[in-house]
Amino acid sequence: MNSANNISYLDYNATTPIDPRVLDAMLPFLKENFGNANSTHHFGSKIKKQIDDVREKAARFIKADTNEIIFTSGATEAINMALKGIADVYHTKGNHMVTVSTEHKAVLDTCKYLEGKGYEITYLSVDKYGLIDLNELEDAIQKNTILVCVMHVNNETGVIQLIGEIASIVRKKGVLFMTDATQSVGKINVDMESLGIDLLCLSGHKMYAPKGIGALYVRKSINLPTYMHGGGNEKNLRSGTLNVPAIVGLGKACEIATSEMKNDAERVVRFRDELETELLKIPKTFVNGNPENRIYNVSNICFKGFDANVMIGRMKNVAVSNGSACTSAVIEPSHVLTSMGLSRDDAFSSLRFSLGKYTTDKDIKGSVKNISEITQSIYRYA
Amino acid sequence: MNSANNISYLDYNATTPIDPRVLDAMLPFLKENFGNANSTHHFGSKIKKQIDDVREKAARFIKADTNEIIFTSGATEAINMALKGIADVYHTKGNHMVTVSTEHKAVLDTCKYLEGKGYEITYLSVDKYGLIDLNELEDAIQKNTILVCVMHVNNETGVIQLIGEIASIVRKKGVLFMTDATQSVGKINVDMESLGIDLLCLSGHKMYAPKGIGALYVRKSINLPTYMHGGGNEKNLRSGTLNVPAIVGLGKACEIATSEMKNDAERVVRFRDELETELLKIPKTFVNGNPENRIYNVSNICFKGFDANVMIGRMKNVAVSNGSACTSAVIEPSHVLTSMGLSRDDAFSSLRFSLGKYTTDKDIKGSVKNISEITQSIYRYA
Repeated sequence: MNSANNISYLDYNATTPIDPRVLDAMLPFLKENFGNANSTHHFGSKIKKQIDDVREKAARFIKADTNEIIFTSGATEAINMALKGIADVYHTKGNHMVTVSTEHKAVLDTCKYLEGKGYEITYLSVDKYGLIDLNELEDAIQKNTILVCVMHVNNETGVIQLIGEIASIVRKKGVLFMTDATQSVGKINVDMESLGIDLLCLSGHKMYAPKGIGALYVRKSINLPTYMHGGGNEKNLRSGTLNVPAIVGLGKACEIATSEMKNDAERVVRFRDELETELLKIPKTFVNGNPENRIYNVSNICFKGFDANVMIGRMKNVAVSNGSACTSAVIEPSHVLTSMGLSRDDAFSSLRFSLGKYTTDKDIKGSVKNISEITQSIYRYA
Repeated sequence: MNSANNISYLDYNATTPIDPRVLDAMLPFLKENFGNANSTHHFGSKIKKQIDDVREKAARFIKADTNEIIFTSGATEAINMALKGIADVYHTKGNHMVTVSTEHKAVLDTCKYLEGKGYEITYLSVDKYGLIDLNELEDAIQKNTILVCVMHVNNETGVIQLIGEIASIVRKKGVLFMTDATQSVGKINVDMESLGIDLLCLSGHKMYAPKGIGALYVRKSINLPTYMHGGGNEKNLRSGTLNVPAIVGLGKACEIATSEMKNDAERVVRFRDELETELLKIPKTFVNGNPENRIYNVSNICFKGFDANVMIGRMKNVAVSNGSACTSAVIEPSHVLTSMGLSRDDAFSSLRFSLGKYTTDKDIKGSVKNISEITQSIYRYA
């Protein structure tokens, strides 16, 4: 799975392969069970039952209620739906939101859009470990604050925010709390009940389900406005024909993660630690992020003086990410790393290694070898 | 394909099965080629090339330019993106739009939403054949009109609007023209160049590609605002990880339709005509829609005095649709049929038969037999 074309894939935070069991569960719905979930005939009703089952599975997985799960085309859509929806519904209560400077672009760009519409956004800073200051959070919440949005696990560094404590502070202030859990659901336990989260976003293709599917958890006391108009699917939040095969895949992925997540984690963390230990032997390297509050599958390492893009270009057998916003025309250093106090140069010298359940010992040893060779062969500017 | 569980599937306008060749094209991207199109490493760049190829294929299919195709999660998203986007961009020019009372709910519900935001919408009426009056259209266009939106082929009746003439009237008035081509692309030739269309929506799962994928054609002179924020994919209109397997499927479906659409049509129309001829032998039946300007795969028939829902419930071996908005809590008669002047009763007595390329002679003969038996066995109230 990792070793297509003999390349060690260490970019699971960008996207995961589909678990073959997930694909097997999807295939009947890509073939003979192709009905539209809204159809009243036999083809449709069979599908509808299946969708209901998955909704229940997904809800159970994060300890939510079945009617609190809205299927979306992915986490980005869920984030847009939640942030714009809350802004719209609560604008009479206030026009202020709090988020963090290290959030994913889906949150930051949506917040920027809301600023253009007259909303006021506070962007909390993070310390050198990527964590927000809980006092700063408390101070940032004003009378007109309608939402606090803090991601659970950072996609670039793997840093885990103290989401339970954050939720409790936010809740005490009577404000809604949202978390982008794209990089945590399916990897670590996420329990809505005990965490006190009001809105949560997740993505299928980060947890061995296909691309094109995600979900938004919305606490049932919250009435979001329609995000996509056209008939009234998904509690009138998101119309459009349900993406049945992908939904079924997400359900299967939740089921598998429920029983295997813990064991996978134990194996993956050993590989991650081995990779990190070996790479840190290269001179002038250091880990970005919090060594304590960090998810088990990520290591973000600065190779001081090297250009990460040049390194990626030279890695013939390893697929990793530099975490910079390469989709835009201008190449910028990672906003996550610079927010943590890294210089532009150090940010440009950093690589994200994200491992997954198919990572092998061979992947780790091969990557270490390849990267060590590269750092010995290319020019270091500092 | 049609005959899963020995049921004749005559509901292709609700959703089509995936062409096995489309699924074959998708499978490598559901398996080993799982990369994220935004990744800079080998896994990503391979995917990016594939996406570019599909964009070109899809563009060529409707005679558009490659950079005019935006991939979406489906037609509903494309419609929301287009209508809300145009409303937003051109609100300084005017706040008036023109559409038709028989449009799909995705258009009508979005228009209703825009009315709530202060936009003024004119809903053109249709005649008993489902066609709009071109003079009424011309009169409806005002100084403050920013968009006219008329669907190409109606999903319930198959009625084909005179889209070329409509576009030419709209263009002469200097107004943008949008068409929902969900039920035409993949079935009949759609040529952006000669039709003079500014925005067009299409859906994968209506043309033997999977659910969860669609596209919006936007003429390159039009700058739509971002619909989904978060990084800047799809010309900054629609962020989120690209649904690679589904996009590849859409491309394959375009390729197949290009070479086979015409032959499929010739076969399907014979089946449709045979079905219609036989069903019209049942007393007090008539066809809804224009017998001339009608797509070849649809027959919408009123079985006067029968309850279509009861008929559907009795059809053990045929899957058809009553076309009513069964997703809402209150069952309403089809807005398309009542707009064409049908009484509520006649609308409730109407069934939509929509055929496709896998329809067989057996499907037709079996359906006719089943429906004839049902009409003889159940109570007719008029």
